[in-house]
Amino acid sequence: MDTAELEDLRLATRAFIRTEVIPAEPRPGERLDPQVRRELNEKAKAAGVFAPHAPVELGGRGLAIDQWSPVLQEAGYSPIGPSALNCMAPDEGNMHMLELIATPAQKERYLAPLVAGEMRSCFAMTEPHPGAGSDPEALRTTATRVDGGWRIDGEKRFISGAIGAGFAIVMARTDESDAGPAGATMLLVDADNPGMTLGAAIHTVDRAIDGGHPHVHFDDCFVPDDAVLGEPGRGFAYAQVRLGPARLTHCMRWLGLARRAHDIALDRAAHRELFGSPLKQLGIAQSLIADSVIDMETSDAIITKTAGLLVADARAGSALSSVAKVHCSEAVYRVIDRAIQLTGGDGVSDGLPLAQYLNEVRPFRIYDGSNETHRWAIARRSSSARARAGVERMDIPHVDRLDVPQEATA
Amino acid sequence: MDTAELEDLRLATRAFIRTEVIPAEPRPGERLDPQVRRELNEKAKAAGVFAPHAPVELGGRGLAIDQWSPVLQEAGYSPIGPSALNCMAPDEGNMHMLELIATPAQKERYLAPLVAGEMRSCFAMTEPHPGAGSDPEALRTTATRVDGGWRIDGEKRFISGAIGAGFAIVMARTDESDAGPAGATMLLVDADNPGMTLGAAIHTVDRAIDGGHPHVHFDDCFVPDDAVLGEPGRGFAYAQVRLGPARLTHCMRWLGLARRAHDIALDRAAHRELFGSPLKQLGIAQSLIADSVIDMETSDAIITKTAGLLVADARAGSALSSVAKVHCSEAVYRVIDRAIQLTGGDGVSDGLPLAQYLNEVRPFRIYDGSNETHRWAIARRSSSARARAGVERMDIPHVDRLDVPQEATA
Amino acid sequence: MDTAELEDLRLATRAFIRTEVIPAEPRPGERLDPQVRRELNEKAKAAGVFAPHAPVELGGRGLAIDQWSPVLQEAGYSPIGPSALNCMAPDEGNMHMLELIATPAQKERYLAPLVAGEMRSCFAMTEPHPGAGSDPEALRTTATRVDGGWRIDGEKRFISGAIGAGFAIVMARTDESDAGPAGATMLLVDADNPGMTLGAAIHTVDRAIDGGHPHVHFDDCFVPDDAVLGEPGRGFAYAQVRLGPARLTHCMRWLGLARRAHDIALDRAAHRELFGSPLKQLGIAQSLIADSVIDMETSDAIITKTAGLLVADARAGSALSSVAKVHCSEAVYRVIDRAIQLTGGDGVSDGLPLAQYLNEVRPFRIYDGSNETHRWAIARRSSSARARAGVERMDIPHVDRLDVPQEATA
Amino acid sequence: MDTAELEDLRLATRAFIRTEVIPAEPRPGERLDPQVRRELNEKAKAAGVFAPHAPVELGGRGLAIDQWSPVLQEAGYSPIGPSALNCMAPDEGNMHMLELIATPAQKERYLAPLVAGEMRSCFAMTEPHPGAGSDPEALRTTATRVDGGWRIDGEKRFISGAIGAGFAIVMARTDESDAGPAGATMLLVDADNPGMTLGAAIHTVDRAIDGGHPHVHFDDCFVPDDAVLGEPGRGFAYAQVRLGPARLTHCMRWLGLARRAHDIALDRAAHRELFGSPLKQLGIAQSLIADSVIDMETSDAIITKTAGLLVADARAGSALSSVAKVHCSEAVYRVIDRAIQLTGGDGVSDGLPLAQYLNEVRPFRIYDGSNETHRWAIARRSSSARARAGVERMDIPHVDRLDVPQEATA
Repeated sequence: MDTAELEDLRLATRAFIRTEVIPAEPRPGERLDPQVRRELNEKAKAAGVFAPHAPVELGGRGLAIDQWSPVLQEAGYSPIGPSALNCMAPDEGNMHMLELIATPAQKERYLAPLVAGEMRSCFAMTEPHPGAGSDPEALRTTATRVDGGWRIDGEKRFISGAIGAGFAIVMARTDESDAGPAGATMLLVDADNPGMTLGAAIHTVDRAIDGGHPHVHFDDCFVPDDAVLGEPGRGFAYAQVRLGPARLTHCMRWLGLARRAHDIALDRAAHRELFGSPLKQLGIAQSLIADSVIDMETSDAIITKTAGLLVADARAGSALSSVAKVHCSEAVYRVIDRAIQLTGGDGVSDGLPLAQYLNEVRPFRIYDGSNETHRWAIARRSSSARARAGVERMDIPHVDRLDVPQEATA
Repeated sequence: MDTAELEDLRLATRAFIRTEVIPAEPRPGERLDPQVRRELNEKAKAAGVFAPHAPVELGGRGLAIDQWSPVLQEAGYSPIGPSALNCMAPDEGNMHMLELIATPAQKERYLAPLVAGEMRSCFAMTEPHPGAGSDPEALRTTATRVDGGWRIDGEKRFISGAIGAGFAIVMARTDESDAGPAGATMLLVDADNPGMTLGAAIHTVDRAIDGGHPHVHFDDCFVPDDAVLGEPGRGFAYAQVRLGPARLTHCMRWLGLARRAHDIALDRAAHRELFGSPLKQLGIAQSLIADSVIDMETSDAIITKTAGLLVADARAGSALSSVAKVHCSEAVYRVIDRAIQLTGGDGVSDGLPLAQYLNEVRPFRIYDGSNETHRWAIARRSSSARARAGVERMDIPHVDRLDVPQEATA
Repeated sequence: MDTAELEDLRLATRAFIRTEVIPAEPRPGERLDPQVRRELNEKAKAAGVFAPHAPVELGGRGLAIDQWSPVLQEAGYSPIGPSALNCMAPDEGNMHMLELIATPAQKERYLAPLVAGEMRSCFAMTEPHPGAGSDPEALRTTATRVDGGWRIDGEKRFISGAIGAGFAIVMARTDESDAGPAGATMLLVDADNPGMTLGAAIHTVDRAIDGGHPHVHFDDCFVPDDAVLGEPGRGFAYAQVRLGPARLTHCMRWLGLARRAHDIALDRAAHRELFGSPLKQLGIAQSLIADSVIDMETSDAIITKTAGLLVADARAGSALSSVAKVHCSEAVYRVIDRAIQLTGGDGVSDGLPLAQYLNEVRPFRIYDGSNETHRWAIARRSSSARARAGVERMDIPHVDRLDVPQEATA
Repeated sequence: MDTAELEDLRLATRAFIRTEVIPAEPRPGERLDPQVRRELNEKAKAAGVFAPHAPVELGGRGLAIDQWSPVLQEAGYSPIGPSALNCMAPDEGNMHMLELIATPAQKERYLAPLVAGEMRSCFAMTEPHPGAGSDPEALRTTATRVDGGWRIDGEKRFISGAIGAGFAIVMARTDESDAGPAGATMLLVDADNPGMTLGAAIHTVDRAIDGGHPHVHFDDCFVPDDAVLGEPGRGFAYAQVRLGPARLTHCMRWLGLARRAHDIALDRAAHRELFGSPLKQLGIAQSLIADSVIDMETSDAIITKTAGLLVADARAGSALSSVAKVHCSEAVYRVIDRAIQLTGGDGVSDGLPLAQYLNEVRPFRIYDGSNETHRWAIARRSSSARARAGVERMDIPHVDRLDVPQEATA
C-alpha cells in the first residue's frame, strides 16, 4: 500500500472508530459482548477497515509491518477497537505467524477463518512455575512422538484468549526423532480435542482481550502429523518471529488508548476549571499535559524506528522491540494516570472510563515479558555490543597515569 | 497513654488484624459486608483495640494525635482493618471534630453511637461544579434562617459514606443573622430528615470506604437551632480543624496497606523466582524493594513530624499536612505498583489483592484536595514564608556587579 | 547524498573522532585551544568529514536536514568533535540560516569563510531582563532607519560564541519605513564595527561552545543597507527558521556525548567491579544501563521523527522540535548522570571526563528556551489542536446522564 | 541541652552564618582560604556557635546526636559554614569516634586540638581496587605486630581531608597476636610520620571538604602501641560506629545547602519573571517549588527519625541511616537542580553559586557508600526482616486454591 492509501486507511479507521465503535463500547469494567463484536466486524468489513494487517487474499488490507502503527493507533483509540477490526492480541500475532510458516492447508483451515473473524485463537506457551515464563527455555510441556502424530502433555497458564478460542498454538518440548531435532515444537490443537481442557480462569484487571487468561491442560492429547506448525524442533525460533512484532502491536494499540485518555483530559481542561481554580493553577496542569505529549511522541517515534528495523533486520528489530515495549508500556500508563489526575474525582469514577483504562494497561508492564526482564536483556545486549566493538577502553582514569602532583593547600 | 502502653496497643492491634481481620477480608473488588463489620467491631471491643483515636469515656482508647500513627498503620494493614476498628474515614474525622466542638447533647446523640459503631456518618461539603470542591469558598448550598431553625437547600456530590449513614454534617453558606455573622455554618442532619435525599451514586475504583460516594440533595430541609455544630458563620475554620488531621490519618492507614503489599512481594521474592530467573535479575528486584522501603520510611517520618506539629501548632501542622498528603499518597501508590511488578502476572490478577490495592489508593491522590491543589498551596506558602523572612535577596548574580573582564580567548 | 554514502560518511566521521579528535581533547574543565581547533579542521577537511551539514559548493558535505542525525551524533561523541568538524553551535545554525536567506554577496562575505572555518560567528538575540529571552517578542534592541543604512542600539547578553567571532547576526526591533513593515529585522554586523563592543563575560559550566557567552553592546552602531539579512520586518519568522533545526542539532550532538558517557560506564562495568561488589549488585547496575539505553534510543527516534517533519512540514517540525528538545536534554543528562554513578568515585573526579560532561549538558535544559517554556508551548499546542479537531467532547461523565440508582448497601 | 537552649543555638548559628560566613564565601569553584577559615573559627567561638557537636569540656556545645540536625542544617546553609563552625566531614565524624573510644591520652593529643580547630584529620579506609571500597571487608592494608608497636603497609585512596591534616585514623588488617584477635584495627598516625606520604591528588567537583581527596601511602610505617584506637581487631565494629552518624551529618549539612538554593530560587521567583513570562508559566514554577519543599521536608523528617533511632538503638539507627543517606542525597540534588532551572541562564553561570552547589552535592550520591550499595543493603535487610517475622506467607494466589470455574463467555 502506498503512502497516500495508508493515510486514507488511517482516516477511514479513525472515522469508523468514532462513528461506530465508540458508541458501542461497554461500560467501564464490562466486556465486549460477542454478538456486538460480530456486528462491528461486519461493519468494519463494509467500511474497508477490517483486519488491516492481514493478507489481502484473505480479506485483510495487507499492510506491511512498518505501516501498521498509524492504523493500529487509531484502532486502539477505543479499547474494543482492535476487536472490532480483528487486529487484537493474541489473534493478530497468531495470524502473522501462520502467514509466515503455516502450510497452505493449515492456512485454509486456521488462518482463513481467523482473519475472517469466524474464529478466535490462543497461543499456549506460558506455564505454571517453574515452567516457561519469562524464560521460554524452561518449557515443561512435552509432545511425544507417537504413531501418526504426537501426544501432548502438560499444563499451561495465563493463556490469553483461550476461553472460546477455536484452536490453540501450543509450544511443547520435543525429543529428537524421525521428525526433527530436539527442541521446541509448535502444534495446532483444535479446541474440541478431548485432550485439551480449560482450567481455572485467572481474573485480571484488563478487559480488552476477549477470552480471558485461563489455565489450559493437555492430557494425553493426540494430534496428527499435520498439526505441526513449521518444522519440529524450531519452536523457539518461531516464537521470536511472533514475539517481536506482537510486542510492538501492543505498543501501537495502547498508544491509541493513551491518546483517547489525553483527549478526555484536554476536553475537561478546555471546558471547565481544573482543581477548582483555572487561573491560578493552570501551569501545573500544563506541565502534566506537556509531559503526556512528550510520552506519546517519543512512544510513536520508537515504535516507528522499531517497525522499520523489523523490516530491515528482524533480529535487530526484535532486540529493539524490548526498548519499545518498556518505554511505551510505562509511557502510556503515565499518560492515562495524568489524565485521571486532570479530571479529578470523575477520573476515578466510572463516569469516565479512565480508571478502567489504567487497569487495562497496567498488566502491559508485565505481559509479553516483564519490563524488568526486558531491562535485563537490554542491559546485557548493550554490554555485549560494547565488548564486540573491540575498541580501546575509555574508563581508565587519567589520574592513574599521572605522577604525584603534591598539593600545597591545606 | 504512655509510650509502653502505646506499643502494647500497637502490638495488640497488629495481632488482631492478623488473626481476626485478614481472614475475614472480602475477595478483591468486593465490599465488606455490614454484618461482618458488626462482628469484627464486637471482637475488636473485646480485644481492647476498638476506636483507638476516640475518647475513653465513649469506649475508645483515647490516643493523642501524635500517637495515632503506629496504631492506624497497623489497622490499615488490611483494607477492612479501619472499618473493623471503627477508625475509618469519614467517621474518624467526624468523631474528632464532634469531640472538639459539639455540645454535650450533640455528643450524646451523635458522637456516642458513632464511636460505638452503632451508626455511620458523612461529611457533606463537596458540591457539583462550580460549587465547593478544591476551593471550599465556592460553597453554594445555603442554610436560611427560619423560625426555630434553618432551612437547607443545595446539592452535594461525592459524599463519601452517605449511603447508610445515620446523619450528615452539612456545610452551608449562611447570611448574617441574629445567630451569627455571615459565612459558612455546619449543621447536623439526621438521615431520616425528609428534606435530605440520596442522589446518584458515583461508582469509584476504591472499595474501603463504606457507604459509597453518592450525590446528596437538600430541598427545603428544615433543622432546628440545636442542629448547628459549633457557632454559626465559623464553618470554614472548623473545616480546617477537621481536614488537617483527617488528611494525615488517610496517610497512616494507606501506609499500612503499602506495608501489606510490600510483604506480599517480599514473600514472593523469598520463596520463588522473580521475573522467571532469580539469579540473574535479583538486583533489579532489589532496587524495587529498596525504593519501596525508602518510600515507606520517609512516609512514616513525615507523618510523625506532621502529627507532632499538629499538637504543637495546629496551623503549621495543617500546612505541613499538605506535604505529608502529597508525599504519602504518591509513595504508597509507588510501593503497591512495585509490589505488583515483583509478583508478575499474579499481581494483576485477583489471585493476589494487589491490583485492588492499587485501585484503592489511586483516588487518594485526588481525594482531600488533589495533589496539584496541594502543590499549589505548598508553593504559595513557601514563597510567602521567604518573603516574610525579610532578608537580603540572594539571587542577584555577581556578574551584574562586575566591570567588564574582557576575555582574550577565541 | 544517498543512504549508502551517508553511512560511509557516518563511519568516516566515527573513525576520525576516535583517531584524531579524542586524542586531542583538553583535560576536563579546560577549553579547546584555537590552534588545535585549526589543525583538527584541516585534518577533517583532508578526511572528507568537514562541515557535513554545509553546502558542497562551499566545502561542506551537503547533507539534508533529515540526514544530519547519524553524522552529528558521531561528531558529538567528543565534546570538541563538533568544533573539529565545524558543525558546532552557534555557527552551524547561522550557516543554515545564511544559506536559506542571505544574498549571494552576503554568502560570499560571511557564509563562505564561516563554512571554511576561517571565521566564527554569533547570534545576538537574547537581552537582559526585561528584554528578549524566552519570549523573543520582548525585543528591546532597536535598528533605526538612517541615511544609507541603520543605526543599532541596545544590549544583548548570553551571546554564545561572541568572543572572537568575526561577525554577529543581530535581532533588532524596527519601525515601519521605506525598507519594510514594522517588526524585527536581522542585521549582519562585523566584529570590528566600532559600535559593537563586548561586555562582561558570563562564566558558565559548559566548555564546548567556543567564544563564551558574553554581553554585547550596540551603541550608535551604523551598518549599511546591505547588512540586512533577508527582508526588514521579517526577523521573527527567520528566527523560527533558525531555531527549530538549531534546537535539533543540539539534541544530535549531545546524544553523541551521552553515548560516549555510556561507553565509558560499560567499559568499567565490563572490566571491574561495580559499587565495589560485582556479583551482588550487578542487577542494580543493569537497571541503570537499561534505562540509559532506553533514553538514548527514544532520543534517537524522536530526533529522526522531528528531522523528517522539518523537511516535510517546517512549521510542524518546529513545533515537534520542542518535544525533542525537552526529551533529549533531560535524557542525555540522565544518561551521563547514571554513567557517573556506575563509575563511582572516579566518576566525580577529573580522572574521568564524566563530571565535566554533566556540566556540559546541564545548561541545555535552559538554553534555546528553558524546558519549562517549551513545556508551556507544548501544552498550549496540544490543547489548541484538540480544540480545532472540533469533535464531540468526551469528558462528560456518564453518571450525569443517569437516574438515581439508590443502593442498598450500608 | 534543653529544647529552648537548642532553639537559641540554632538561631545564633543562623545569624552567624548570615552575618559572618556568607560574606566570606569564596567565589564559585574556589576553595575556602585556610586563613579565612581560622578567622571564622575564632569568630564562631566568640559567638558561642563553634563545634556544636563536640564535648563541652573541649570547647564544643555538647549537643546529643538527636539535637544535631537543626544546628547542622543552619551551618550547611553556606558551603563553608561547617568549616567555619568546625563541624565538617571528616573531622566531625573523627571527633565523634575519638570521643567514644579514645584513651584520655589520645583525647588530649588528638581530640582536643581537633575540636579547637588547631588541626585537621582524615579517615584512611578506602583503598584502590580491589581493596576496601563499598565493601570494607576487602581491606588490604596491613598492620603487622612488631616490637613496641605496629608496622603499617598499604595504599589508601580518596582520603578526604588528607592534604594538610595533622593525623590520620588508619584502618588496617591485623592478624591474631598478643594484642588481640585477627580482624581490622584502627591506628592513629601523625602526618609527619616518615612512613606516611601523600600520593596523587584526586581532583573532584566538590570544593567544601578542606584537604582534597588524595591517595595516601603507608610504607614501613611504624607506630607505637599507644597508636591503637580502641582495641585491636575491633576496627570494623568501630567503623560502623563512625559511619552511621557521619552519613547522617552529611545529610544535615547538605539539606542546609538545599535550603539556600531554594531561597535563591524563591527570591528570583518573587522579584522577577520566571522563564521569561511570569503570568503564563507561574504554575510550572509552582510545581517545581512544591516538589522541592516536599523533598526538603521529607529529608528533614527522615533525618529526625534516624537520629532518634541512633540514640535509642544504634544498630537499627545505623541501618536506617542508609535510607536517610539515599533519600537525602537524591532529594538535595533535585532541589538544587530545580533551583537552577528556576533561575535560568544565571543558574548555570557563576553569577549565582547554584551550579557549584550541584557539583558540591553530586558526589554525595557516591561518597559514604554509593546509593546503589545502600539500596542493595536496604533490600537485603527488608527481606531478612520479613523472613524473621516468621508469619504465614501472603503471596499464595487464591486461584491456586480454587476449583475450575469454567467461564461461558467468548
